[in-house]
Amino acid sequence: MIIVMKHDASGALVDAVKEKLIAMDMRTNISRGTNRIVVGAIGDVQYVDIKVLEALPGVESVVRVAKPHKIVARESHSGDTIVNVGGVEIGGNTVQVIAGPCSVETQEQMDSAAQAVVAAGCRLMRGGAFKPRTSPYSFQGLGVEGLELFQNAARKQGLPIVSELMDVRMLDAFLEHKVDVIQIGTRNMQNFDLLKEVGGIQTPVILKRGMSATIAEWLMSAEYIAARGNHNIIFCERGVRSFETAYRNVLDVTAIPVLKRETHLPVIVDPSHAGGKAWMVPALSRAAVAAGADGLLVEMHPTPAEAWCDADQALSPDELNDLMAELKGIAQVIGRTL
Amino acid sequence: MIIVMKHDASGALVDAVKEKLIAMDMRTNISRGTNRIVVGAIGDVQYVDIKVLEALPGVESVVRVAKPHKIVARESHSGDTIVNVGGVEIGGNTVQVIAGPCSVETQEQMDSAAQAVVAAGCRLMRGGAFKPRTSPYSFQGLGVEGLELFQNAARKQGLPIVSELMDVRMLDAFLEHKVDVIQIGTRNMQNFDLLKEVGGIQTPVILKRGMSATIAEWLMSAEYIAARGNHNIIFCERGVRSFETAYRNVLDVTAIPVLKRETHLPVIVDPSHAGGKAWMVPALSRAAVAAGADGLLVEMHPTPAEAWCDADQALSPDELNDLMAELKGIAQVIGRTL
Amino acid sequence: MIIVMKHDASGALVDAVKEKLIAMDMRTNISRGTNRIVVGAIGDVQYVDIKVLEALPGVESVVRVAKPHKIVARESHSGDTIVNVGGVEIGGNTVQVIAGPCSVETQEQMDSAAQAVVAAGCRLMRGGAFKPRTSPYSFQGLGVEGLELFQNAARKQGLPIVSELMDVRMLDAFLEHKVDVIQIGTRNMQNFDLLKEVGGIQTPVILKRGMSATIAEWLMSAEYIAARGNHNIIFCERGVRSFETAYRNVLDVTAIPVLKRETHLPVIVDPSHAGGKAWMVPALSRAAVAAGADGLLVEMHPTPAEAWCDADQALSPDELNDLMAELKGIAQVIGRTL
Amino acid sequence: MIIVMKHDASGALVDAVKEKLIAMDMRTNISRGTNRIVVGAIGDVQYVDIKVLEALPGVESVVRVAKPHKIVARESHSGDTIVNVGGVEIGGNTVQVIAGPCSVETQEQMDSAAQAVVAAGCRLMRGGAFKPRTSPYSFQGLGVEGLELFQNAARKQGLPIVSELMDVRMLDAFLEHKVDVIQIGTRNMQNFDLLKEVGGIQTPVILKRGMSATIAEWLMSAEYIAARGNHNIIFCERGVRSFETAYRNVLDVTAIPVLKRETHLPVIVDPSHAGGKAWMVPALSRAAVAAGADGLLVEMHPTPAEAWCDADQALSPDELNDLMAELKGIAQVIGRTL
Repeated sequence: MIIVMKHDASGALVDAVKEKLIAMDMRTNISRGTNRIVVGAIGDVQYVDIKVLEALPGVESVVRVAKPHKIVARESHSGDTIVNVGGVEIGGNTVQVIAGPCSVETQEQMDSAAQAVVAAGCRLMRGGAFKPRTSPYSFQGLGVEGLELFQNAARKQGLPIVSELMDVRMLDAFLEHKVDVIQIGTRNMQNFDLLKEVGGIQTPVILKRGMSATIAEWLMSAEYIAARGNHNIIFCERGVRSFETAYRNVLDVTAIPVLKRETHLPVIVDPSHAGGKAWMVPALSRAAVAAGADGLLVEMHPTPAEAWCDADQALSPDELNDLMAELKGIAQVIGRTL
Repeated sequence: MIIVMKHDASGALVDAVKEKLIAMDMRTNISRGTNRIVVGAIGDVQYVDIKVLEALPGVESVVRVAKPHKIVARESHSGDTIVNVGGVEIGGNTVQVIAGPCSVETQEQMDSAAQAVVAAGCRLMRGGAFKPRTSPYSFQGLGVEGLELFQNAARKQGLPIVSELMDVRMLDAFLEHKVDVIQIGTRNMQNFDLLKEVGGIQTPVILKRGMSATIAEWLMSAEYIAARGNHNIIFCERGVRSFETAYRNVLDVTAIPVLKRETHLPVIVDPSHAGGKAWMVPALSRAAVAAGADGLLVEMHPTPAEAWCDADQALSPDELNDLMAELKGIAQVIGRTL
Repeated sequence: MIIVMKHDASGALVDAVKEKLIAMDMRTNISRGTNRIVVGAIGDVQYVDIKVLEALPGVESVVRVAKPHKIVARESHSGDTIVNVGGVEIGGNTVQVIAGPCSVETQEQMDSAAQAVVAAGCRLMRGGAFKPRTSPYSFQGLGVEGLELFQNAARKQGLPIVSELMDVRMLDAFLEHKVDVIQIGTRNMQNFDLLKEVGGIQTPVILKRGMSATIAEWLMSAEYIAARGNHNIIFCERGVRSFETAYRNVLDVTAIPVLKRETHLPVIVDPSHAGGKAWMVPALSRAAVAAGADGLLVEMHPTPAEAWCDADQALSPDELNDLMAELKGIAQVIGRTL
Repeated sequence: MIIVMKHDASGALVDAVKEKLIAMDMRTNISRGTNRIVVGAIGDVQYVDIKVLEALPGVESVVRVAKPHKIVARESHSGDTIVNVGGVEIGGNTVQVIAGPCSVETQEQMDSAAQAVVAAGCRLMRGGAFKPRTSPYSFQGLGVEGLELFQNAARKQGLPIVSELMDVRMLDAFLEHKVDVIQIGTRNMQNFDLLKEVGGIQTPVILKRGMSATIAEWLMSAEYIAARGNHNIIFCERGVRSFETAYRNVLDVTAIPVLKRETHLPVIVDPSHAGGKAWMVPALSRAAVAAGADGLLVEMHPTPAEAWCDADQALSPDELNDLMAELKGIAQVIGRTL
């Protein structure tokens, strides 16, 4: 059961709700988000009198949520949550395409990538400064310096940025460098300490699906973030592991309608990491938008053949342009804009 | 290596090619299709002089095909193969939606289903007379009587029909009842004797992907059919098995662009068996068409709640109508019609 | 619910039970096995009076079986079923190792293989005359001639034989050539028409698990055979498909204790097809016997390097000898013999 | 290519090797382990003159390792590495069973668990103070207090302890509390920052396999640890994700012989998390030891039904006793002790 309170309810009002719940033999979890405060009640809710709780000052609604994911469940919030990233809305009527290179390499590369992102009509940029590489001997990203190069390039174009955080100890650097959206990668979907940390701030989070995570587990990982107060969560489907070897991962397009039913939060898709080949990206992108995705996370490099990592999966600026035109058409068919 | 000959090349000309190959120490496989005759040469092709073969009468082209799937490979035939089903083209510019109930139940049900199929603008109808059921105690289909009820209903509406063949011994009944497209189901994708049998006729075949078949294995199963002379093969992606339990199978949308690159044959998608729930079908259908599918195989029942099998995955006639309207829009965006 | 009748109950007694059930609004399925006759009652068993049924002549017991697999369920028969193959018992205290080549090649090869099988202390021999090959251009087995070569070799050594049946139309040939155990392969686990046919005879059947079949589906495929009256079924785990590429299939060793709990029928393991490499076979074989398998199906070839198929997974005669010695030790530890 | 140097080679000698490699246009990685120092040479090794390197003072051997996992590869070290944990050897001839509860609950529970561990003849104890739970609302472990309770109990019995580390910031606490073996859990197998940290110390590490990690990825994760200088790594197979729902994960028994071939490091198995049910543990444990595992990680709780987490997968002390007796027999058959 959750008790939704007005976002400006005072601490005293929240405490009063908490105490009432404790008196009813419940354990509680307080999650202070920017738009609402959610008090979770854990325990045997069978005998709890909802009316008593509804009558408490500051309380907006009391909802019995059957699902184990409480705050992120559609049951707990019937409308679609829109995550605002520096004025760009994710989860609203407009489909957002977040484009950029796999990894930050040089200032020149980032500048030219940022220009291409804007030229294609995208409103957000991606780029990795810390790279999760299978081998310890592969390029591991430029680190903090990469964040700087990235911001230099993006600010000139007025683009909010998305970058992956792997280590809790780097969170301060991400905040200092004003990373607009923190990406939690596939390999960290169940790095619970990292989830708790990004739950403690209000920066929007893109939560990528684990390599073979069930949708139920993925929702619970989002709940880890939400339980600490950060409700600005964006799910990102990026393909799951299968027996097939003709491509990298199988893009789980069914996860899109399933998630849209299970949660009020936005759902985007990464077609680049799913397929692993640039020539697959247009078809997968069209499929994702047609299935109802709220956005895409697409790899684009000014000169793909020279990319320092995942060279064969990045689109060129021209290919991104062409893709945007197609996606605009698909979005219109289902009553959305791009 | 394959030697493509004109579809009207005489037996003597084909024999001459065959003998020449045998003289070159090759084994041969003759596949007489309706549009071309393909002579496969198996063995060490390294030292074969292509010019000698090209010069033989009746030979159109000689192609070294690196892939183990020879006849169905895109390399062996650069254009898209269009499979003609009683005047309806599958694999051409028009996306074809094949609709109908999971199983044939009664004449009334089939009549009303056939009307709904036509009313929605579909040009082909599906229906199962022989049902592969997990349990021996479940309804196994009406059998030959089902084929009759199906044809009665479909002919009134001028609809070619698609139905599943499970047993080699039933092939004659399918031919007698003039089933227009024979479906080979998921569980029989590697029932090689069945593949050989439908390879020996010219009726178009829909070859569904096995529960966890790789694309490479699927192409080889099609090759079994093609090697015997039936080149009218349509691939049907229907979801593959995964660890996820939120839906029945994971629809492998990436298989669509991969197959379109690997083979010249049409590729359709069954969104109903993939997701397993009617509410998922529209999103999956849009995704499939957006990704480049040449058609869909959709379950529609006049009264879904009363369906004898898979009741919760069939669309109602109204839902099919709505879906067709959306798909028309998607098809247009990618330069196709519906 | 099932009604177990004495194996020698007359047709009239069985009919009487059937009529009583029909009068109770049940559908029935009669399965006449060699050791017991099982009458299945399908429908709403809630109001059925078990005592009335138990009192009918010829009835041994009446069991409410909650599982959808009725006849093969442990619930329906608490003891272990022992399948007798020409005097060799599978499913008893002795672990049986069935060895032999992947495919029948020549009389000489089979003769020498049969000698090696006996020399190693094995009591049953395997060999494929009909081979399910991914490619239509690969060697498809010697067919009926292969069965002959196989029986010639095996009879000299007094070995009962196991061979795979792929096509319903070949069943008569298998019966004529007195194949002692009919193997249903992985690709045919849900070839329901084939299952029904082998359900109609009394020859023991080895039912291999489908490439990605759940244990529940596998049990239901066995039920297809049992429902028709053949209760001599042996399950064979042979690895399931996974994402791993370091070996062919992942041997599902957990399936062994799970099956032993779910069914009274014997469970054997094919370590050769699971791993796909001869050097993995000893470790997998030991694991299977240690986990409780009733037997193994192992590929052995007189000269592995010359095998016509799966050359790198066959053991040599010497390797089989060594393996048998190890397995004898493992069997003793868990109170069995080999 | 790797250059193996004597464990006591001076810094100057190592630097000399490094400089020589740099002069040959190589990048280098220095890994100072307790038994050997490994200098990795990354780059185009084709033209490197091995003899020049072998002649340098302090160099033991120079090995071209084709595998991307260099230090952990069998190629780089032909013998079996034995990891010494407070005098208990893992990876030697004796199979080690590490037993204990899923989570540390109370002093009393740990005391009684420790007694049971010793009574069963086990020489190492496991217990979780930090628990990775799917839900943020589930018990997350007692934290540092749990480590204290654990050490109190284990020291009385002279047992080295194994406990899971999830957060880099907790490493100091683990060192302070002298945790003898640090476990890196399934969800953190590719938490590369955590791997780097435990690579920087010399405490032995149990590296569990990721939920759907390939063996190749797993080896690379170990290489992350080894590259930083900690060579005391123990692989732990704990089941991988599959489509099967009859148990929790499919125990990949084939991974045991494959790993023993690919790496010189010890390999143990966790049968409790694999199956997820206590009744499956004996069969899986026997299979693991029979397949060549160097040890087991088994859940045992003084009173399983009262366990705070995973209650149905823990063995009772009596069941552990019985299991040890069986395993002793299996170990003997393959020439090992327990």
